[in-house]
Amino acid sequence: MLALDELDVPIVGAPLAGGPATVELAAAVSEAGGLGSLAGALRTPEQLEADVAALRARTARPFAVNLFEAQRRPGDPEAVARYAAALAAEGLPLGEPRHDDDRLGEKLALMVELRPPVVSFTFGCPARPTIDRLRAAGCAVWVTATTPEEAVEAAGAGADALVIQGVEAGGHRGGFDDDAPGDYGLLALLQLVDAAVAVPLVAAGGIVTGRAVAAVLAAGASAAQVGTALLRTPEAGTSAPHRAALAADGRRTGLTRAFSGRTARGIVNRFQREHADAPSAYPEVHHLTTPLRAAARVAGDAESINLWAGQAYPLAREAPAGEIVRALADEARARLRELAAGA
Amino acid sequence: MLALDELDVPIVGAPLAGGPATVELAAAVSEAGGLGSLAGALRTPEQLEADVAALRARTARPFAVNLFEAQRRPGDPEAVARYAAALAAEGLPLGEPRHDDDRLGEKLALMVELRPPVVSFTFGCPARPTIDRLRAAGCAVWVTATTPEEAVEAAGAGADALVIQGVEAGGHRGGFDDDAPGDYGLLALLQLVDAAVAVPLVAAGGIVTGRAVAAVLAAGASAAQVGTALLRTPEAGTSAPHRAALAADGRRTGLTRAFSGRTARGIVNRFQREHADAPSAYPEVHHLTTPLRAAARVAGDAESINLWAGQAYPLAREAPAGEIVRALADEARARLRELAAGA
Repeated sequence: MLALDELDVPIVGAPLAGGPATVELAAAVSEAGGLGSLAGALRTPEQLEADVAALRARTARPFAVNLFEAQRRPGDPEAVARYAAALAAEGLPLGEPRHDDDRLGEKLALMVELRPPVVSFTFGCPARPTIDRLRAAGCAVWVTATTPEEAVEAAGAGADALVIQGVEAGGHRGGFDDDAPGDYGLLALLQLVDAAVAVPLVAAGGIVTGRAVAAVLAAGASAAQVGTALLRTPEAGTSAPHRAALAADGRRTGLTRAFSGRTARGIVNRFQREHADAPSAYPEVHHLTTPLRAAARVAGDAESINLWAGQAYPLAREAPAGEIVRALADEARARLRELAAGA
Repeated sequence: MLALDELDVPIVGAPLAGGPATVELAAAVSEAGGLGSLAGALRTPEQLEADVAALRARTARPFAVNLFEAQRRPGDPEAVARYAAALAAEGLPLGEPRHDDDRLGEKLALMVELRPPVVSFTFGCPARPTIDRLRAAGCAVWVTATTPEEAVEAAGAGADALVIQGVEAGGHRGGFDDDAPGDYGLLALLQLVDAAVAVPLVAAGGIVTGRAVAAVLAAGASAAQVGTALLRTPEAGTSAPHRAALAADGRRTGLTRAFSGRTARGIVNRFQREHADAPSAYPEVHHLTTPLRAAARVAGDAESINLWAGQAYPLAREAPAGEIVRALADEARARLRELAAGA
């Protein structure tokens, strides 16, 4: 089973489901010595199977597949209907706001068959039998936690490592319960979790520089997970208007449920501002807004799409992913040596 | 003028205005090789003068005096009146919700006369002539920033160092504008500020362990400011119900204006929960709630007082302040050496 300290460099590529994730990006991160991730969520099992095969054709190095745990309960149908009516009144193209589990059962069976070195979960902790089944197949199981309580639960369920996600993180809050998303800053959360569990930790949230990689290692993490730092790489599938917004550097990020029905951080644009009261209903709202987001992306309209970005996004560079991973690791190593020499 | 790298250990004691700050606590932090702080806010100039004299009688080492910058404008009188009426309807003892500047002008004159090694500011950036006057008297001037924009403004105004406060921090958000309090996690903010200004940085917010001290040094800070980590020391003036809440360890912290009219982080209790809509009006609301807080403290009622605490408060220990400062520094040094050896 892959142990975190077997990685050549302590950098994990974030899953980046919903567009930015590509086989090329995962391959570049793994080839640079880190751990690339495939987004298993928002892909069919057939697509995911093809992605794993394509990645294995590009690299013999370890990688992770990320899955979204199924939501415990559907959103409030009336709140979803109200939101759908409001968007329809704006004349926007909408999808059917259905509740589903993204064919999770099939994907889990696929993981047992394909045996990726790591299967990571967001949006919840799998039940112990699921974790045991994946581990028996040789997969290390990672679970994302945004609070100390979630970390303790996941460690108790048998997770091999925890992805500790601070509130700085771009994209979806990965915690278990969208009604109570963790609001811990990464450094506070790392301290609390480090004191509460014995499993290795991967730190996530706003890490865009090598100094921040060094910082989370100092705080007790075994690796840093970076997502926003990779969004401007040529290997990422980031859309043109999303890339332009990341490069423009002017605006704040904020938390929103407007695009997916689950709390996520993005650069605040018109859609996010105007729909601050969107309901907690994933994936209903995701399906509802899929057509309007697709249309806006084609039109190059950055004001109507999810501009996922962590709080430190203005520091994300446009460069090949492998170069970024190596630079982060080199800068972190140099910083730690410099400080130890003076300590 | 005191430079940050002259400190024996890279630890600054937070000002902790409004009760926890004492001469004994500042002396203990400075004697341990860090930089102790006196809270100049919420004290009369006469009390502050006596505090400085008492501190100088206890230690010959450097220290800081913290002042609250005057608020740019009073709060909305109607909103304050509504809040006062709501509290009066609960039968609570109330004070006069007056707007004042805490006699800032007199305190600034006192600083020029007394020449403490550091004068630090929260709630705003002093005008350049004020900074120049303090520097001419030999005081290093520090300004608290919660956003990259505030950091750039303060550096441009001539600050010698910036206290970079992440959203994890306990007590008041120290930024310039309560209508737009910075919501950056410390690690994201440190990266952004480190890239934007050239002045030394003091990192604040949720730092309770030596590993977190090491982390902020790795991220580019010259020192860590700790507040919550000192609240349970015998030297602190922390009230008994506040100490009990910190030791109980069960509850989340949250941001509130209920006690002072300015956004601050405390352990969520009944008063904080029931007055989530308190107006932005500092110091009007501070004066308004002073009698009810005083009465509740005497009664040992932890549900009606401000339980300021950073997000990592469950890790704060009950031990002498000097021991805590030395342990934080030792643990940080050991961690950096350990990591550099493996890097």
